[in-house]
Amino acid sequence: MSIRVGILGATGAVGQRLVELLAPHPQFEVAVLTASESSAGHPYREAATWRLDAPIPDGIAAQTVVETDPSALPEDVSLLFSALPSDVGAQVEPAFCEAGYVVSSNASNERMATDVPLVIPELNADHLELLEVQRAERGWDGALVKNPNCSTITFVPTLAPLTDYGLERVHVATLQAVSGAGYDGVTSMEILDNAVPHIGGEAEKLETESRKLLGSIDGDRISHHDVTVSASVNRIPTLDGHLENVWVETAESISPDIVADAMTTYPGIDLPTAPDPFIEVLADPDRPQPRLDRRRGDGMAISVGGLDSTTTGGIQYNCLAHNTIRGAAGASVLNGELLVERGYV
Amino acid sequence: MSIRVGILGATGAVGQRLVELLAPHPQFEVAVLTASESSAGHPYREAATWRLDAPIPDGIAAQTVVETDPSALPEDVSLLFSALPSDVGAQVEPAFCEAGYVVSSNASNERMATDVPLVIPELNADHLELLEVQRAERGWDGALVKNPNCSTITFVPTLAPLTDYGLERVHVATLQAVSGAGYDGVTSMEILDNAVPHIGGEAEKLETESRKLLGSIDGDRISHHDVTVSASVNRIPTLDGHLENVWVETAESISPDIVADAMTTYPGIDLPTAPDPFIEVLADPDRPQPRLDRRRGDGMAISVGGLDSTTTGGIQYNCLAHNTIRGAAGASVLNGELLVERGYV
Amino acid sequence: MSIRVGILGATGAVGQRLVELLAPHPQFEVAVLTASESSAGHPYREAATWRLDAPIPDGIAAQTVVETDPSALPEDVSLLFSALPSDVGAQVEPAFCEAGYVVSSNASNERMATDVPLVIPELNADHLELLEVQRAERGWDGALVKNPNCSTITFVPTLAPLTDYGLERVHVATLQAVSGAGYDGVTSMEILDNAVPHIGGEAEKLETESRKLLGSIDGDRISHHDVTVSASVNRIPTLDGHLENVWVETAESISPDIVADAMTTYPGIDLPTAPDPFIEVLADPDRPQPRLDRRRGDGMAISVGGLDSTTTGGIQYNCLAHNTIRGAAGASVLNGELLVERGYV
Amino acid sequence: MSIRVGILGATGAVGQRLVELLAPHPQFEVAVLTASESSAGHPYREAATWRLDAPIPDGIAAQTVVETDPSALPEDVSLLFSALPSDVGAQVEPAFCEAGYVVSSNASNERMATDVPLVIPELNADHLELLEVQRAERGWDGALVKNPNCSTITFVPTLAPLTDYGLERVHVATLQAVSGAGYDGVTSMEILDNAVPHIGGEAEKLETESRKLLGSIDGDRISHHDVTVSASVNRIPTLDGHLENVWVETAESISPDIVADAMTTYPGIDLPTAPDPFIEVLADPDRPQPRLDRRRGDGMAISVGGLDSTTTGGIQYNCLAHNTIRGAAGASVLNGELLVERGYV
Repeated sequence: MSIRVGILGATGAVGQRLVELLAPHPQFEVAVLTASESSAGHPYREAATWRLDAPIPDGIAAQTVVETDPSALPEDVSLLFSALPSDVGAQVEPAFCEAGYVVSSNASNERMATDVPLVIPELNADHLELLEVQRAERGWDGALVKNPNCSTITFVPTLAPLTDYGLERVHVATLQAVSGAGYDGVTSMEILDNAVPHIGGEAEKLETESRKLLGSIDGDRISHHDVTVSASVNRIPTLDGHLENVWVETAESISPDIVADAMTTYPGIDLPTAPDPFIEVLADPDRPQPRLDRRRGDGMAISVGGLDSTTTGGIQYNCLAHNTIRGAAGASVLNGELLVERGYV
Repeated sequence: MSIRVGILGATGAVGQRLVELLAPHPQFEVAVLTASESSAGHPYREAATWRLDAPIPDGIAAQTVVETDPSALPEDVSLLFSALPSDVGAQVEPAFCEAGYVVSSNASNERMATDVPLVIPELNADHLELLEVQRAERGWDGALVKNPNCSTITFVPTLAPLTDYGLERVHVATLQAVSGAGYDGVTSMEILDNAVPHIGGEAEKLETESRKLLGSIDGDRISHHDVTVSASVNRIPTLDGHLENVWVETAESISPDIVADAMTTYPGIDLPTAPDPFIEVLADPDRPQPRLDRRRGDGMAISVGGLDSTTTGGIQYNCLAHNTIRGAAGASVLNGELLVERGYV
Repeated sequence: MSIRVGILGATGAVGQRLVELLAPHPQFEVAVLTASESSAGHPYREAATWRLDAPIPDGIAAQTVVETDPSALPEDVSLLFSALPSDVGAQVEPAFCEAGYVVSSNASNERMATDVPLVIPELNADHLELLEVQRAERGWDGALVKNPNCSTITFVPTLAPLTDYGLERVHVATLQAVSGAGYDGVTSMEILDNAVPHIGGEAEKLETESRKLLGSIDGDRISHHDVTVSASVNRIPTLDGHLENVWVETAESISPDIVADAMTTYPGIDLPTAPDPFIEVLADPDRPQPRLDRRRGDGMAISVGGLDSTTTGGIQYNCLAHNTIRGAAGASVLNGELLVERGYV
Repeated sequence: MSIRVGILGATGAVGQRLVELLAPHPQFEVAVLTASESSAGHPYREAATWRLDAPIPDGIAAQTVVETDPSALPEDVSLLFSALPSDVGAQVEPAFCEAGYVVSSNASNERMATDVPLVIPELNADHLELLEVQRAERGWDGALVKNPNCSTITFVPTLAPLTDYGLERVHVATLQAVSGAGYDGVTSMEILDNAVPHIGGEAEKLETESRKLLGSIDGDRISHHDVTVSASVNRIPTLDGHLENVWVETAESISPDIVADAMTTYPGIDLPTAPDPFIEVLADPDRPQPRLDRRRGDGMAISVGGLDSTTTGGIQYNCLAHNTIRGAAGASVLNGELLVERGYV
């Protein structure tokens, strides 16, 4: 049985990754592709400037793109994946939810709203319960679920196995790939032979989304985790894969061995796009590296390396995830699969 | 009056930068260039595969390279700059010191020896007093002075202005340029579209050299500062300029404004190669950047940006220095100038 | 005696290079900076997002930018340097010329117009005589002079010394730096770990501008040289410096030695910004290289290497020039100097 | 039925690609891996520093590496793939052939020997007939077959469809990826923000191997094609994929349409690793590009774009192939498959 789905904002960088992941998906059938008004009416192969290595999947290239508007959608589509820019998402996603669609969205708008689940399925699938509150408050037949920012998704999975030890403080420095800014986000003159120690709004996302993700359902709201996270973010000249240096301080003293074991044994989830293992701890101290490790678990695994105790009394390590797969399109697809499994679609 | 100087290991990457800095130097005259046995006897232009943008300085190209041995040096040379690999440095630098030469060395051997001054002139020129101990203990007529590792030099100058506030803990993540590994140190296959979160022995250098540099003379030894530093080190695809993300915790609460003021007013030193200002605090949050800021102060200034208070209760900022100038060759030259000014040469 | 000059389009990539070259110029004083309407009224330091390594020159940063309109210019300015985009140039340059200004322009519009001199001073300074025709035909008090496209400037100087041997056919492949497309012209996603074998309209510029440049004054027009040039153009991941592979076929058989001699002895010109030597022939077969050779002659020299005879019966070699200095801003400045020397200003 | 094969020089860059291609091969079973003396006796996972994205294939990692010597091989192995450096290949390949092994070799030694077939199966499979001569002359039970250099393989397939039109002269400029020089062949300092217009011996390989490949069997020797090829070779900062600009002159006048048709309809070959189509002509003028097109046909297809007539009277276009797959390891595997199909194994 296949579920007919749509992709909102299908022509952009994340939209193209969604096409790539959803076209061969065992559960989903791509029934509709939306884009801005100027692209509507054109076949996808013309509307999108395709940038991925593999060609446009058969059956997608010829589909006619429609406007990003609920009235343009076929009736039998129930699940939508949103790769809209956040300002557009803020404007139109509610209309789709109101029209009854379940929306799994990568757009950053409303991620921190108290009645919007911000979900990494392996970590906090139970946050979906918030949808009851959302539907009650907003009067929607549909639903809106968000995945976190790509740099958040890279390191928060490595914190989840450590919450049992009294997670207190985290310092994280990110080395982020240019694809995280979209196809036109970083010019070559900015980044060749260079690095930029600033990405607008990014540090705050790491610091706040992490607390919501690690929080727990408390009646009709999420009680945020009280870990404090301080982030420094950098753009570097790599194409894909965010590498992050992490320092963790816990109430209970922990060793690198305990951490490696906690991460390695942290359970994944049984969904089509979920990687197995979820977290891979690499022994070689110079791993993970973006180009060599971003494709682990088909781009959905979290890699960890360089685990060590620190002079400052905690634990340090490096982690990596593919920013446009695990960190964006793949994250949305996984949330969509979870929504189906839990009966929301 | 010009002092005749020599360059030990003149053909390598740091040796070439020394040639570039010393050839036009107002106080020094390059009287002798040494290299390995196979290069000895050849003119410098043949012995060295010159890699810098500007051509080999006139008057240097035709000089005959000699073996790295005290017996090969002219008698009227008294000050030597060492760009030797650390294993060679460990082997031969003592012989030069015993033969009466004062050696300003960039090699990493003996940096942490209790009777070897590890010096950044603007920070701890008084550590040169250790030379009395060194001469007494080792029976040398000459002297051995070291500059720190390039990644250490980048961030320790930014800590010095904060010691008055009770410097306690520092986390630092480095984004280091490939030139720091020498000309052949990083292959293109390793680093294109990639980053490597490990450099052998580097993190330890940041953690230990910083405590010695910030320490104070206590009789015949250095009492190391008790700040704890934890470092994560990364190699990225940039040519020159180490960028570092720093988090500082102090006993006394400090604001970004206090820190900016302390850094900006921290005094430089009056030596020919010293930059003025020593530390430049940049207002633009996306600076410093390696390609745009590494040439400040002719490659000798320390740039700082992104000053902010942190969720974890301290201060964070980014800093940058040119790793082969301020971080290596220029550091040695500056130490040589200091040795002259203080009467050791 | 200093001539007061203006820069049209002073805030863009080429405009910034013009500021950098003209601020310390011995003959010129930057009296006015123009930009688009939205920038007018603001100090230059705010109107321009400054991207060069060295800071904005003193005396320029505080100048108030004016609109790109003849009425906005001070009366005592007579020479203008235009770094306008070609569409804007086409629209407004004639108005400045009509208003009496002499304009040395880097914009591509009108380069091939029969009454517009297209000039590389070392090659065809006599083409300025065309200005008589221009003034007569257009009724201008001012004048419009163009410099060629950056990729044209790189290789045509190497053909000029060979015209005596009956220059017949040229094949040229370009490896062009990203700065040639302007600051935002090439995204990082396009060019990292990649190369693009196409730049819109570029091949045609190499093929046609070369014939005009090598042509000779014939009464009131330029008789184009009848050499046929075929170009393949590529964008590669370098910042500055266009490298070109050239094959030349001549009527008279020539050897690499003859070519090296002809290039080396080809005369430069005695103007402040002109390099000496004009063309440098490098012996090392793996030179010129963009990063190592683009700064020769302060970015104004043409480097040549790899001179060899070919299996196909001609001569082959590689050449290089700094595309935003010799290939753009420096080319315009040099033309301005020539206009002054020849009495047109 | 599976044929047991060996890989000579299995730990290097091309050796690893051979492992990657042969481990899942439908006809071959990797029975033995050889390397230098120091690696012999160690499991492959320790002997090789594995650099490819995908992990070492199961069943290979634990195999014990043996010395590169005929006496170290199991008796039931008959086909060997050689990824040896050319100096080692020259020394040991004959010994293997003498011992009865059929060797499909990527090493450059003996490529131009008159009794050694230099083969691209789609082009000149009939050159294998030379093996009769080879066996007769050398008294071997085995056989030695070579594939061409990676930069030769990229453009010669595009010439083959044009031989009917009287192929006369070719100019080719290459933009070659760093992997072509092996893992340690190009340092990062050499190539970041740079390009190098020289690769030792490479131009000559393009010029001579092409004539042999396009030649025809004439009794007991190959009559080389009389096309003259002139090459300029460049190394650029890309990881994989050689891009080449080609100009072709033919006796008979041809149009871009004729060329496109000739290339598109040029037959491939029915072998497991052969791509279908063999040559892909892309309509978009800015293709092929290394990062976007190198994986076509699983890295075995030749991509062509930018087809146009030239001012100089011929045809120009750009072509691209994956240099370590189609240009090296995949070429050897394909030759091995051909040797099996034709009954030489």
